[in-house]
Amino acid sequence: MDPETREEIMGATYRALREHGYADVTMQAIADESAKSKAALHYHYDTKRELLLAFHDHLFESFVERLDDAEAAADADDPASRLTSIFERLLSAEDDDAHTEFHALVLETKARGPYDEAVRRKHLRIDDHVRARFETILRDGIEEGTFDEAVDPEETAAFLWTLINGCHTRKVATGRGVEPVRRQLYEFARTTLVADGGAHAAEVLPE
Amino acid sequence: MDPETREEIMGATYRALREHGYADVTMQAIADESAKSKAALHYHYDTKRELLLAFHDHLFESFVERLDDAEAAADADDPASRLTSIFERLLSAEDDDAHTEFHALVLETKARGPYDEAVRRKHLRIDDHVRARFETILRDGIEEGTFDEAVDPEETAAFLWTLINGCHTRKVATGRGVEPVRRQLYEFARTTLVADGGAHAAEVLPE
Repeated sequence: MDPETREEIMGATYRALREHGYADVTMQAIADESAKSKAALHYHYDTKRELLLAFHDHLFESFVERLDDAEAAADADDPASRLTSIFERLLSAEDDDAHTEFHALVLETKARGPYDEAVRRKHLRIDDHVRARFETILRDGIEEGTFDEAVDPEETAAFLWTLINGCHTRKVATGRGVEPVRRQLYEFARTTLVADGGAHAAEVLPE
Repeated sequence: MDPETREEIMGATYRALREHGYADVTMQAIADESAKSKAALHYHYDTKRELLLAFHDHLFESFVERLDDAEAAADADDPASRLTSIFERLLSAEDDDAHTEFHALVLETKARGPYDEAVRRKHLRIDDHVRARFETILRDGIEEGTFDEAVDPEETAAFLWTLINGCHTRKVATGRGVEPVRRQLYEFARTTLVADGGAHAAEVLPE
């Protein structure tokens, strides 16, 4: 399948999912959002399930691209700047309705984890990716002295990613903004992650 | 309605929800899990929606009871012990399948937040309750010198509750256990919450 076709189908899938929800979406509903017919969709994806699993892969790839962009926008030699740039990307636009609806859709699929091994593996892949990325940044920072050597890179990566997961969940469930938690996250970074004397790193982290 | 009847209906609702999911459960499915007929259920709750909203209230009350139990099991004069006891209650039994299925059900209802104002308000009530409880414990601890006066009780309460939300979400979505995050949570409590010289509080917090 050429990339344009795939992109068009994934866009239609997203619109249909937002309209009908993950549990109730149908191939017809996706076709209705697409320039393609239902028969054409079935040519590319045998079943709805196959299409939805491909959609999870599409989400993964878009997510990795967003994180790559965030890191590319940061100072490559500054682990604190890379970390901040990713936090901002993950926690920004939280007051945007479309963004919240997107997270609601993702949350609906997360709730299927215990019942759907294939979907659970898709979420595990994202979870592993982000934790590994945080871990790399933390290790880089410890190595060059920006971050405190008492920091456990693997567990701290899980801690940070869990906190961001919680921000997204609470925003969807309650509508509560992330601002107070965002401030405390940077406070944590300043007081716990940054090594003694890491004045520059402490400056890079927002108030 | 007498408390036994309510308890019986809520138990049947929970079993039916676990069997069918929040989106697909019916009054008949709930009646099938209950000693009551569908007509008898309708006598107490006009609609399925009314019953499900009552179920959210039931979840809230059970949750508050669990937190009350946890605090009652702690040393009432020791804020660090009260905090630890609640953390343990909220993060324990995570490897229990029934517990994960329960959280999956809750997550499914959280995903409805942006689309269902009444359900969103139920989640907001729980969110407000836990944050206020954490805030009270933190204020008590700051007042008596256990916790550092630099701690912002309101924002730190949100930070802690967001982290716990994230643990539950990740456990459901990926099956990942909470242990590394739990350790880092206590590390955070020891290094950031506990006041200088709070040797006792640091001892109460698990490794």
